[in-house]
Amino acid sequence: MSEHPGVLERLLSGDVTALARAITWAEAGDARFQRVLSGANERVGKGWRVGVTGPPGAGKSTLVNEMIGAHRAADRTVGVIAVDPSSPFTGGALLGDRIRMDGRSSDGGVFIRSMASRGSRGGIARATVDAVDAMDVFGFQELLVETVGVGQAEYDVVGAADTVLVVLCPGAGDGVQALKAGILEVADVLCVNKADLPGAERLVSDLEEAVELRAVGLRDGWITPVISCSAGKAEGIAEVMSALASHREWLEEGRLREHRSVRRLAQVRRAVAEALDVELWEAAGWRDRASHLLENGKAHYDVVADLINGLRDAVREKTEGSTKER
Amino acid sequence: MSEHPGVLERLLSGDVTALARAITWAEAGDARFQRVLSGANERVGKGWRVGVTGPPGAGKSTLVNEMIGAHRAADRTVGVIAVDPSSPFTGGALLGDRIRMDGRSSDGGVFIRSMASRGSRGGIARATVDAVDAMDVFGFQELLVETVGVGQAEYDVVGAADTVLVVLCPGAGDGVQALKAGILEVADVLCVNKADLPGAERLVSDLEEAVELRAVGLRDGWITPVISCSAGKAEGIAEVMSALASHREWLEEGRLREHRSVRRLAQVRRAVAEALDVELWEAAGWRDRASHLLENGKAHYDVVADLINGLRDAVREKTEGSTKER
Repeated sequence: MSEHPGVLERLLSGDVTALARAITWAEAGDARFQRVLSGANERVGKGWRVGVTGPPGAGKSTLVNEMIGAHRAADRTVGVIAVDPSSPFTGGALLGDRIRMDGRSSDGGVFIRSMASRGSRGGIARATVDAVDAMDVFGFQELLVETVGVGQAEYDVVGAADTVLVVLCPGAGDGVQALKAGILEVADVLCVNKADLPGAERLVSDLEEAVELRAVGLRDGWITPVISCSAGKAEGIAEVMSALASHREWLEEGRLREHRSVRRLAQVRRAVAEALDVELWEAAGWRDRASHLLENGKAHYDVVADLINGLRDAVREKTEGSTKER
Repeated sequence: MSEHPGVLERLLSGDVTALARAITWAEAGDARFQRVLSGANERVGKGWRVGVTGPPGAGKSTLVNEMIGAHRAADRTVGVIAVDPSSPFTGGALLGDRIRMDGRSSDGGVFIRSMASRGSRGGIARATVDAVDAMDVFGFQELLVETVGVGQAEYDVVGAADTVLVVLCPGAGDGVQALKAGILEVADVLCVNKADLPGAERLVSDLEEAVELRAVGLRDGWITPVISCSAGKAEGIAEVMSALASHREWLEEGRLREHRSVRRLAQVRRAVAEALDVELWEAAGWRDRASHLLENGKAHYDVVADLINGLRDAVREKTEGSTKER
């Protein structure tokens, strides 16, 4: 407790060590993070958040490195959070190399941090968004979140961004068919990387067709562009940056406030779910009660009902009580 | 409500249409499923559950098909749930082909069903385990769950199995380094598929080394075997089946009861989390309260604290009240 005013002040004054500390707290679900963030709440929301996702092997890390370069060339500061999918598994070796930078590069305008997703089961999305908030408070102008996974947690992570960039490449998996519709719903910009590989043109046209068939109404008028690039050869980066900038302009001209409200509410919801789980399961003894009921042969959904009904009664009584008090 | 006694009876009498109906309810989070399952609680736990997972392209579906064949050759009935990762994305085309069988094959001893993971965000693990319970109640002896994804939800799904089979293949992603330690913790049997491809021997020896370094204590004495096979050529299937059988014997000789208690408790916990989210967020008006507080500039963690503290008070008062009553 004694430490957090120091960390908050140092964070606000540009001390990168304090930023790293805050993110470590976020990762651990340490309550000190919450106090730091609450103390700097008015500074949250100044940076622009781009979520970068896509299947393993699509070249996300390479593209993110190019994006960092483009931002730095325009003298914009960049904070990057990479979700390290150490559990259960995914191809993240490139990422692994970058992680060794341990949050600092030789360029003070760039901060890169990987989030260990292990040990925070269910809390990855919460911790990652918290970490981006910390970089935002610190003052980075461009906030990038790269997720290597393809699961629900990663979906939640990129869904918290202002702009979602989905990176694909020809030949990975089974192409568009395998991607199904979900990807179009989350993508604000679609990027086909490794555009010189066979099948790239086909993938682009398939995606364009899919966007055409489904985009209407999904994003309130934003038509997801499909961009080709070869991040490994630094080709097409300007086009990607331009598409991202267009989405930003589009949001800023209208829906940004609403977009961010929805996002912030989802953030509260996730944090509530995580806190509730701890609160009830551990502190309020639900684990013991559930174990006891299961051991006595009660069907598991009856156990669930027992727990929930008890809580429902408590909340109702509380609500009625506080209404009377007024 | 009027329908569920019929479904339960038909399910118990071997009507596959009733099974399909029950699973559809499970998928939709329909309360009728819970009543069906509670009515057949004593029959849950008769079948043996094997979770099959691994990165996209490892050949899981092909291997599962071979496993089905091996079980059928030994005259054991098989129920299969495949988690269809339609959102956000993964390579699942092979799976897609199989899905068209729509829960029925020409062999009455096999039931295959894919679970749509879209639309049940956060509830995939709950719905999948429910579906396996339904197949268990129906009477299938061998219960296979195949997950194509690599995220947290899939981890939860396979973690609910008696035996977890992790399928890898050489050249997919970056090998062992990319897999990190997490995979060893969930794997009861490791299988290197496509064993004729270059790099297979190396992958096997790397995995064996990794098991040797980390296995102690992780599974209370079970040493995860590493098996080579080529599912596409039907080679090595007997060895995979034998390794799975060994794990089953090992569990049945000791830890099965404890293992399943832990699993069942996790199942209750997931269902509670899902029910709580609906109960509090929607029914008890937490969404509105959170929106209101956020709009008034409250930091999001302060909003979380506000909601949780209110609940904590209610639960405490309720607990004290019920203690007094006794």
